[in-house]
Amino acid sequence: MINSQLINPQSIVVIGASNDLRKAGGKMLHNIIEGDFKGALMVVNKRESKVQGQKSYASVDELPQVDLAILAIAAPHCPGVIEELAKNKNTKAFIVISAGFSELNETGAQLEQQMIDVANKYNAALSGPNCIGIINQNYHGVFTTPIPVLDSKNGCDFISSSGATAVFLMEAGMQVGLRFSSVYSVGNGNQICAEDYLQYLDETFNEKTSSKSIIMYLENIKKPQQLLKNATSLIAKGCRIAAIKAGSTDAGSRAASSHTGAMATSDMATRALFRKAGIVYCSSREELISIASVFSYKKLIGKNIAVITHAGGSAVMLTDALAKGGLQVPLIEGKDDDDLLEYLHVGSSVSNPIDFLATGTAEQLGIIIDYCEHKFDFIDAMVVVFGSPGLFDVENVYKVLNVKMDVCKKPIFPVLPSLVNAQKEIQYFLSKGHVNFPDEVILGKALCESYFTGDPIDSKIVDYGIDKHVIRKIVDNNKSSDGYLSSEENNAILDCLKIPRAHEVSAKTQQQVIESLEKIDFPVVMKVVGPLHKSDVGGVVLDIKSQDVLLAHFKEMMQIPDAQGVLIQQQLSGVELFVGVSYEKDFGYLLLMGLGGIFVEVLGDIKVCLCPCTKKEILYRLKNLKGYPLLQGIRGKKGVNLEAFAEIIQKISYLTQIMPEIQELDINPLLGEGEKIFAVDIRLRIS
Amino acid sequence: MINSQLINPQSIVVIGASNDLRKAGGKMLHNIIEGDFKGALMVVNKRESKVQGQKSYASVDELPQVDLAILAIAAPHCPGVIEELAKNKNTKAFIVISAGFSELNETGAQLEQQMIDVANKYNAALSGPNCIGIINQNYHGVFTTPIPVLDSKNGCDFISSSGATAVFLMEAGMQVGLRFSSVYSVGNGNQICAEDYLQYLDETFNEKTSSKSIIMYLENIKKPQQLLKNATSLIAKGCRIAAIKAGSTDAGSRAASSHTGAMATSDMATRALFRKAGIVYCSSREELISIASVFSYKKLIGKNIAVITHAGGSAVMLTDALAKGGLQVPLIEGKDDDDLLEYLHVGSSVSNPIDFLATGTAEQLGIIIDYCEHKFDFIDAMVVVFGSPGLFDVENVYKVLNVKMDVCKKPIFPVLPSLVNAQKEIQYFLSKGHVNFPDEVILGKALCESYFTGDPIDSKIVDYGIDKHVIRKIVDNNKSSDGYLSSEENNAILDCLKIPRAHEVSAKTQQQVIESLEKIDFPVVMKVVGPLHKSDVGGVVLDIKSQDVLLAHFKEMMQIPDAQGVLIQQQLSGVELFVGVSYEKDFGYLLLMGLGGIFVEVLGDIKVCLCPCTKKEILYRLKNLKGYPLLQGIRGKKGVNLEAFAEIIQKISYLTQIMPEIQELDINPLLGEGEKIFAVDIRLRIS
Repeated sequence: MINSQLINPQSIVVIGASNDLRKAGGKMLHNIIEGDFKGALMVVNKRESKVQGQKSYASVDELPQVDLAILAIAAPHCPGVIEELAKNKNTKAFIVISAGFSELNETGAQLEQQMIDVANKYNAALSGPNCIGIINQNYHGVFTTPIPVLDSKNGCDFISSSGATAVFLMEAGMQVGLRFSSVYSVGNGNQICAEDYLQYLDETFNEKTSSKSIIMYLENIKKPQQLLKNATSLIAKGCRIAAIKAGSTDAGSRAASSHTGAMATSDMATRALFRKAGIVYCSSREELISIASVFSYKKLIGKNIAVITHAGGSAVMLTDALAKGGLQVPLIEGKDDDDLLEYLHVGSSVSNPIDFLATGTAEQLGIIIDYCEHKFDFIDAMVVVFGSPGLFDVENVYKVLNVKMDVCKKPIFPVLPSLVNAQKEIQYFLSKGHVNFPDEVILGKALCESYFTGDPIDSKIVDYGIDKHVIRKIVDNNKSSDGYLSSEENNAILDCLKIPRAHEVSAKTQQQVIESLEKIDFPVVMKVVGPLHKSDVGGVVLDIKSQDVLLAHFKEMMQIPDAQGVLIQQQLSGVELFVGVSYEKDFGYLLLMGLGGIFVEVLGDIKVCLCPCTKKEILYRLKNLKGYPLLQGIRGKKGVNLEAFAEIIQKISYLTQIMPEIQELDINPLLGEGEKIFAVDIRLRIS
Repeated sequence: MINSQLINPQSIVVIGASNDLRKAGGKMLHNIIEGDFKGALMVVNKRESKVQGQKSYASVDELPQVDLAILAIAAPHCPGVIEELAKNKNTKAFIVISAGFSELNETGAQLEQQMIDVANKYNAALSGPNCIGIINQNYHGVFTTPIPVLDSKNGCDFISSSGATAVFLMEAGMQVGLRFSSVYSVGNGNQICAEDYLQYLDETFNEKTSSKSIIMYLENIKKPQQLLKNATSLIAKGCRIAAIKAGSTDAGSRAASSHTGAMATSDMATRALFRKAGIVYCSSREELISIASVFSYKKLIGKNIAVITHAGGSAVMLTDALAKGGLQVPLIEGKDDDDLLEYLHVGSSVSNPIDFLATGTAEQLGIIIDYCEHKFDFIDAMVVVFGSPGLFDVENVYKVLNVKMDVCKKPIFPVLPSLVNAQKEIQYFLSKGHVNFPDEVILGKALCESYFTGDPIDSKIVDYGIDKHVIRKIVDNNKSSDGYLSSEENNAILDCLKIPRAHEVSAKTQQQVIESLEKIDFPVVMKVVGPLHKSDVGGVVLDIKSQDVLLAHFKEMMQIPDAQGVLIQQQLSGVELFVGVSYEKDFGYLLLMGLGGIFVEVLGDIKVCLCPCTKKEILYRLKNLKGYPLLQGIRGKKGVNLEAFAEIIQKISYLTQIMPEIQELDINPLLGEGEKIFAVDIRLRIS
């Protein structure tokens, strides 16, 4: 419930502000004053008539009407004060920086709920509690320092679940010249969460004035679908977004299960969401800052990087990092290359990295950049590494760099490593609005991450002419006590989805086994019915080629505990594949896909998409499987038609849309050979 | 050829020094003066009688005897000056900072060789050319700034192939408080290379006075065996070593080949060498600095980390990073835990991460550390994350931290993220000799890397009672034109190594095929002899169970171009394994091992050891294969006895010791089932 009073208040009161700048209320007031807030600024402090030069009221009821109240008072007093302000002073926005609420204990949680109920009743925004506040162009409403350099258009918008992390991130960002457009600290976030600020940025986006870079530190994702929608929308408008979702390994402790869907972790869900939304996934402050720094420059639109340097070592390490991450430092050769060499000192190398030696000059740098910009068409971007051994000033070099970064169409990323020798010159460079990458390899990794995250992925639902009514009927008529659909129901659903399956016959007696051979040709597979982990108990026998062998195995299988009968299937060959479905609370269905057998069981070679997903997205994921070469076919063995496999997966995605009862769904394995892909085993449980 | 005159000269002359501090010679002299050099300091500059207050000689022949000459003059003059000094002035050490030698062109290379020849003739040390010089306790002989804080015992020794990288690394290290003991810049390094400085550190190591931390930036490894020897020795003496080897992706362009050994890259060789030596492998300045920072603290000797913080977000990200890297943040619970909680503010959490809230105090931090040190026995180390929101000074917190880091037996790693808010307090903290980790995740990764690098691995050669004379006779008698050993020779070597192999018979006629069945039982495998890529041309047929089928396939196979006959082998089952050998210049033989089939062909799941290698090393490597679960056996399928497989690999390691003619050696596949492991196919080429 973000409103204009929260974002752009015309009047602010700080409840509990004092003259003590070591206290949160005092520092909050100080920052608002220092931030040159243009509206009316008031204080409630019953012991003072003036606080930091501002008029102080002894109590809330003496206040005039006020847009935004910032509360720096003990938690138990907060609900009452909010009620009084909302009711009598037309206050429509609250920032509660006090702690002692739901993060503390049950009593605190009740207090927090009371506040939210009151705010909701009066249609007021409530930010926090337990947050540091808000910094934007309108006011500096935080009780912390530093206030970073604000730049509404070229700085980044920063939304943070954690106040301390926001502070530490701003501090680290300021070291490299990162500017901010706004900072929103969410705190407990039970009325306004991180996703709500993103929605606000989306809804108020202005092509000309808004920042195009958004970074987030998230401790949980409360509204994944909203996040997806607004991130996708913002990126379509030209923004770039990166986020940390902390707590990525928590779910590692989930119990193992034979159900492939259970392999999904909440981190997989987050990554699938981020990929779909086009959000760059980060794991540390340093990564988020380096990605935000990349965002502050022109967007990289190709893989070919020219590395320009006067220091070979940095260039080699950067080239390694780019190559490992999938970008390229292509060989530069030919006539233009020879021409360029003539402008440089003897011993320079222009084959890329372009090394113009320790004695390289500012003019030479300018010429090299001109060649990369205008003559080397295949070059998409430049990285310039230029430090100082401490002999002379390099400001002239950074001046050339500054202008070139301004006038060139291709992005230029600066690595200025001499934090000591060129401290002054780097400060000059940063003062021009640039961000520095002190470490070349960190830049290299950030370039690769941001380049390969890709654009948001369309989530159009395709129904492939599937008759959903037939499927609904099967589901609605299901009477199973444990939710598992029967073989017949499973097969009916596969048929309805037009997913080919192996012919099979179930048998409980020797006579039925013999009769099965009328319908199915050798070789056949026999599987026990009943036990869950069939393979582990010897309940699967492949490649049976005669009736005698078939009957012998039937006898053995019926001795397995819990055996109720057998399934006899036509034996198919091909590459083992699987598709599984997992439900992640709030996120919806995740689709897990990959090669079967050891690839899923041993190697965990699984790709995940958030439903609904398009064929394009599925194809992209499949091509990133470690086992992808097997899908293509290796060593004369036929692969699998990728389009056909992707279509089956997309049909399962559609199934999740029309069958929201799905608790568990596995097709494992499917067997694929070229266009022919057969579902061999399916398991489906509904609620 | 490092000598005492280079490391600890009693007199120094700077040839080409001037009063211009923007010139290399001038700055070099300035640094030596500022560094308070205690010996005689002279200058040769024909235009001045005094330079920077030091006596200047008009020419070299006027100089008195001098230990070390630093040359900052044009390359062509260097050989003559060196000859004159070495011959007439008893100069035994030279540092040539001038460029224009082998890094430039052939003429330069000849000049460089002349200098080296002269230096060698007079038994003198020659550092460089094209280097920045040396910094140690005795003199600051570099032409660059900054001169870092030197601490002979607690700083790190730093050896660098690149002068500029050395400067950038020192600058970045100084930001976090990293101290140095010495800095050796190698330059072109054709008389004294990086490995020679390491050898010097080893040979002059003094338990009481030497630094225990060594970092290296290497652009090439000229003497890998020397590096291995000295690194192993230094680590045995209590040192820790980390290194960057730049250019790790260069070898990615090697031509693909069916020979598994050809999959080895020079980066694999480097990694195998580093692992064997116990050197932590780094890929960036930032990684090397964070590892060096870890080295500056007590060694981590267990996996269990207590994360102590007043800021939840940092703790969560750090915990993620530690868990991903293999370390643990174990749950803390029980009575001591409850007791600790009583000392903290309400709302604190002690279950680990130990979060004592934004309001946490210095006293509370002290108490928490005391509990971790004395009561929580299973905790091996602590990380303390403590920043500042900017409300009050945190120097008292850092004072407690400072003392605890001094008195605790368990290592404590400090994350002080508030580079702005707590700038002054962090400076205080660094002034106590500590290093700071501004980013918790970078620390987490560095801790994991350094912990899991492990100690140097013993390289004892085990011969398993193999009769090497039989093998030598086979090799010495080999007459093949292409170097490939015959089937019979290969089999004889396998038999000599006591590596079991599948029974096989070769056949060229239908009659021989029929006769083969007298020796070998069905099922059998038939392979064509002649073509190289047998599988690709349909030259391998498995699971033949009757004479008719066998003869039918024989007919087909003999139609394959280049088919000279067939091999008929007993069909074995089990897990496919492989062992390969690759020769890397200067490094020696690399042993490649893993699972066969898709694991090697598709997944590149290969582990590499440098020969000779012990069973322990091999076992460790095998356990790190992605396909390791298959070696253990999965889903009721029998695995492979690891000891037995490791023994076969070690025998191949031994073979490389007694058969230095090996150019190419593959056993691919072996088939393993429990203790039974059979070599199915072997290829061996000698020079």
